This record gives sequence, C-alpha cells and structure tokens, in this order.
Amino acid sequence: MRTGLPVVGMVGGGQLARMTHQAAIALGQSLRVLATGPDDGAARVAADVHFGQPDDLAALRRFAKGCDVVTFDHEHVPGEHIQALAAAGETVYPSAEALRYAQDKLAMRVRLSELGLPVPRWRAVTTTADVGELAAGSSWPVVVKSVRGGYDGRGVWVVGNRDEAAARIAEAQAAGVELLVEERLPLRRELAVQLARSPFGQVAVYPVVETVQQDGVCVEVLAPAPGLAESEALEIQELAIRIATELDVVGMLAVELFDSEYGIMVNELAMRPHNSGHWTIEGARTSQFEQHLRAVLDYPLGETRMTAPAVAMANVLAPSIRPGEQPLDERLHYLFAAEPDVKVHLYGKDLRPGRKIGHVTALGEDPGEVRARAARAVTLLRDGRST
Amino acid sequence: MRTGLPVVGMVGGGQLARMTHQAAIALGQSLRVLATGPDDGAARVAADVHFGQPDDLAALRRFAKGCDVVTFDHEHVPGEHIQALAAAGETVYPSAEALRYAQDKLAMRVRLSELGLPVPRWRAVTTTADVGELAAGSSWPVVVKSVRGGYDGRGVWVVGNRDEAAARIAEAQAAGVELLVEERLPLRRELAVQLARSPFGQVAVYPVVETVQQDGVCVEVLAPAPGLAESEALEIQELAIRIATELDVVGMLAVELFDSEYGIMVNELAMRPHNSGHWTIEGARTSQFEQHLRAVLDYPLGETRMTAPAVAMANVLAPSIRPGEQPLDERLHYLFAAEPDVKVHLYGKDLRPGRKIGHVTALGEDPGEVRARAARAVTLLRDGRST
Repeated sequence: MRTGLPVVGMVGGGQLARMTHQAAIALGQSLRVLATGPDDGAARVAADVHFGQPDDLAALRRFAKGCDVVTFDHEHVPGEHIQALAAAGETVYPSAEALRYAQDKLAMRVRLSELGLPVPRWRAVTTTADVGELAAGSSWPVVVKSVRGGYDGRGVWVVGNRDEAAARIAEAQAAGVELLVEERLPLRRELAVQLARSPFGQVAVYPVVETVQQDGVCVEVLAPAPGLAESEALEIQELAIRIATELDVVGMLAVELFDSEYGIMVNELAMRPHNSGHWTIEGARTSQFEQHLRAVLDYPLGETRMTAPAVAMANVLAPSIRPGEQPLDERLHYLFAAEPDVKVHLYGKDLRPGRKIGHVTALGEDPGEVRARAARAVTLLRDGRST
Repeated sequence: MRTGLPVVGMVGGGQLARMTHQAAIALGQSLRVLATGPDDGAARVAADVHFGQPDDLAALRRFAKGCDVVTFDHEHVPGEHIQALAAAGETVYPSAEALRYAQDKLAMRVRLSELGLPVPRWRAVTTTADVGELAAGSSWPVVVKSVRGGYDGRGVWVVGNRDEAAARIAEAQAAGVELLVEERLPLRRELAVQLARSPFGQVAVYPVVETVQQDGVCVEVLAPAPGLAESEALEIQELAIRIATELDVVGMLAVELFDSEYGIMVNELAMRPHNSGHWTIEGARTSQFEQHLRAVLDYPLGETRMTAPAVAMANVLAPSIRPGEQPLDERLHYLFAAEPDVKVHLYGKDLRPGRKIGHVTALGEDPGEVRARAARAVTLLRDGRST
C-alpha cells in the first residue's frame, strides 16, 4: 500500500517554500509548490512543482486539485480567490478572513484597536488633513504606510511635515495605493514573536526574539530577545495568542512588535513562516517550517523549546562580485574553515546585489558570542577573502 | 549572475539520498539523484532526478555529466565502473580503491589484518575444511558471511557444525556467492563510530554510539554509547581515523564494531551516510548528510559536537495495516500528540510490512528517558491506537 500521507500545496516558490519542502520531506511528504518560474528557490529543489501566478484563479484551482490543504509563502493571493477555493471545497489555511489582517494594514489596525490591543496611534489617510490631525495629536515626523503592497518597491515612509505629506499622498493616489498614517514611536528596539495555531485550536508559541533592523531591513534575529524580563516575554506571548485566537489564524503567525517608550505595540502580522523564525531550524526542537505544516494539517504541534541558551540568525545579502573576485562557492569554503559551527542556508537565488540570498545561524551559551559568530560568517560571504 | 554552487550527483535514490537532498538544499544546492524508478524515496522529493541502474556504465556516464562530484547512497556500483568514470575525468568519492573495502568483506579483512587492526579471526572459504579449521582454532558455532552482497536477501549465517557448513557452502556456490568464515565473538554489545574525511585530508569524527540489534537488524542507536569510558571512546575514534586515512576514504565512513569479551573488533565498514548516524540530523551540530556533502566537495568539515547530552534514534518498520485499521497518517497524529518532542523522519516508501520506512529521534538529558521516548513513538506507529 502507498504511504497515504497528505499533500500540502504552497502558493509561492520562494525561500519559505524551499525550507518548508525540507520539513515536508521529514514528514514523509513532498511539498507541492506553485512557482512563477523554474528559477524560484523552491522550484529548483522540489519534485512537485506547478507554474502559475498567485493572482490567477484558474491556476490556483488547478493547483489545489489533489492537495489536502493549500497554504501560502506570501500574502499576494487575493482574498476573493481564497474564498473561491474554499467555496469549491478546498481546504485553505490561513482562511481569507484571517489572512486579510496580514494583507491589509488598515483592516488590521481597525481590528486590533477594536480588540483593545496595543498599536501606535493611527488614522486612515484620504487628504493631507488626516496626516496633519494625526501629527497634531502626536508630533512630526509621522509614518505613512501603504495599506496593501506599496509602490516603487516601498510601503513605508517617514514624513516630516504637511508639504511632504501632500506630495506623498499625491504620488500614492496616482499609483492607486491607499495609505494610512501612524505616530512615529520613540523606539527602544524591535521584537517579534511567533506561534503556530491548528484548526483544532491548539497553539504552540516560540520564545520572543529581537529583530535587529538596518535601513528598514531585518539583518539579525536574536533568540531569546536579550535582557527581556520573563514577565514581559509572557505578556507578549499572551498578546500573540490572543491575536491568533481572535483572528482565527491557522498556521504560523508572526507578530512584529515595537518595544517603545510607550510600551509594546504591534507593528505587523504575517501568517506564514517568517524571517524572524529562521533561527528555529536549528535553534528550536521544532522548526517553524515543520510547525506550519503540522498546523495546517491539524497535526498536534511540536515542542518549541530552544536547543541552546542563545541563538543568532543573520541574513545574507547577495554580494556584488566582480570578475576575478572570489566566487560565492569559494567564500563558502572560507566561511566553513573559519566557522565550523555556523549553519548556512542558501536559497538558490541568482546573485542580484543586495537581494536576500540566505541566512546563517549560530548556537551557543552566550548571546554576544553567537551574535558575533553569525556576523563574522555573513561578513566572510559578503567581502570574500580580501578583508 | 547564477549562484555557481556545485552539483553533487548521488547514485541511488533511497532514504540516504533523500536525507542528503535535504542537506543539499541548505547548502544552496539541489542533489542530482540516479534513481531506479519514480517511487524511490529520493525521486519523490528531488527536482533533479535521472533514472538508471547502478551497474549500467552508460547510465552512470550520462548521469555524471554536469556533476561536480559523484557519490553513492549504496555499495552496488561495480568498482570497474567507478574506475571508468574516474578515468574519463569525473570526480568520484569515495574512489573505487577505497570503496572496495566496503564492497568486499574479504578484501577488507585482508587489509585490516595487514594493518594490524582488531578483527575477529577469519578465513576465506572454498571448502568445508576452511570452516572446520577456523572452528578448530576457536569453537562452533562460527559465522559465515558472503564476501559481496548475498542471496535470498541475506549475507550472514550462524553455522553450528561441519554438516551445516557444507550445506551453506553448496548453496552459496550454486548462487555464485563467495564466502568467508569468522569466529563468533562473545559479544557485550555492538558499537559504531562515524567520521567524515575530505580529499584535503581533514577528518571530523562523531561520538561513538551503541547500535542495538534485534534479529540481525539495527533497531536503536544510542548516542553517546552509554557507559563507554572516555579513553575507550577515544581509542575507537582513533581506530576509525586510522582506517579512513589508510584506506583513503573520502566522504562519510561508518565503522561498525563488536564490543566483545576479547575487546573491540571491527565488524563492517560503510563509506556513505549510515543508519547509525541518523541521530546526527538533530543530535549533532552538523548532520552526517551535510558532512558527507562537505567532504566529497572538499569543503572544510562542520562541527560534530552533540546538541544534547543524550540522543536516541529508533528505526520505524512498516506496520502491517489491515483494512479498517488506523492508517499511518492517523498513527502519526497520535504520535505527535503523545510525544511532541520526538522528531519523525519518514522515507516516502510504500508500506511493505517489515520494511524500514523511517526513523524517530529523541533528545534530552537522560539516556534511559530518551531511549524510552523514541521506543514509545515507534510503538505508536507500529501498533496504532489500540495499545
């Protein structure tokens, strides 16, 4: 007889699908991937790859056939398509109703405010007056965000005064992008917490981590968040459980948080494996990728305990390698020689400079030591031998 | 630019190739697999699968084209084919000259004896007299082994007297199988040690483990081997390094050992990832699968330290599931509910009763506790809900 194990279909063929496939293999499965092309990171390694765009309902319907459950490696599937799949009897997690709060920042702000959960002061933006009123209640500068997606590759802007706000609104309206405005919090740092939730309602929460940002990009994740009091960590974990339960999330949920002088505030939500949880592959007893599969399949969830007292993850951005300079493979040799106890994950992406092409993870006893080790590994890949 | 990362080709599409593919994905690669059919465990999950028999030189030549290095998930590729590939300029690890000692037990016994390494008393068998002379120098029963492969699915027989020996020899000669005979040691237990060795000559050795056998099949692996003195562990690790160096092994080497009343004796060698090292996926900082890839690619090797004080691996044999009985997927639910901190690896194999279809791994502080936990998980998969 055949194994009879389920088929999970993931829409999107990026690194999240690639690493979910690794986890699916252990569970006796093979992830079915809907990729946009053969060079997608997951398409390069998975056996069961379909091609199509995430906003093409016909492609989604074909893809879902024969999947026991459909899930996502990004937020780009329109909610009405997800509803159409569900109406046709496909099992899809997270549901359109839940995923909306990860796709639409305004809907998320409205809902979290209704629930009395801590968010920055915010306001929907139609005119410059909306930005001005928000600023009047806090102070300039303020943060303007696109409600869904963005334009010119960006979705967040710091705006210093009314004139800048007017220009930003005009641009966004020309691009057909809806905006909201939030107060700019006096930040201490950024944190994140992840959990998995199953259709049965079981929840498994991971330790709270610090996400270190540089120029608006997450460069490092430190687990657990250094210096965070246990009581505060517990409160944050309870906040995440409340959000997951109220929004009926199924699968992984990442809650990105501001640790500000006004307290902890929710920044963004993601309902899928997330960069802030890559450290769990080696750093937790159950990785976020296995956990996402277990959750969407309604398997009982896995242990989330850490495998070492301190774990650091650092993202690898594609270096700019000129002809004659050390190629990536040779840099990898140097990294392995210098840091035999750093784990490397490369995503099979072409090397467009600045693109996130992988990450490294270091485990150990001391938070400072593991962070330095991960950073050294990233530097070796970025700069090559010469430094 | 493309990533420029290497392509490793593995001949054989079983669970070792399947788990090596998982490790290759992290290294930015995609394992190229030579499978015998689409239902092979690795063929079900890998993107780059070729089909062919391991003893078909033309198929091997086609397969090797475009691989940076060719390696193996079993010992069934004839040495002359490996030599032909090498002569054609392909990089193949381990070499035919090294692999011979994992394919040919007689050659291995001759070589290890020449090196003065501890092996059971042995003798090549042509006639019953050879068996009788070996028995005269030790005692009946003795152990008769096929030199290469075996017949009727077996390769090792305990033989109690001259008449049994004569019958065994007649059968083997009819099947065209060459034999050797060894003394039957008074065993305390069986041990194993693994290492990786690179073409550069770097060696990384793993902790010595106990391999628990039942009816000649390995059912559990305990890491580190309980109660083994550190000095004895070091001697065993040095023995393995000596073998790897003398035989010029490249890749993973497993040395299976008898812990007997006459001392430690070498039983068998395997030059590939091995069942005795499956615990390293979660239990060591670098898994044997990643390490094998690093070794055959001449990357510097990874840290082999354990991630927990005690690790137990237990093999999962396919249960006999009658219609109406709990299917495997449902048994997995029960396992996950009962043991959220056990890691499961299923090999994507059809459920022919008794076949090895996966393994489970438990990590913890106490050797007895982790062993019991792994055993409970296996029982849940085998017997289903009723027990």
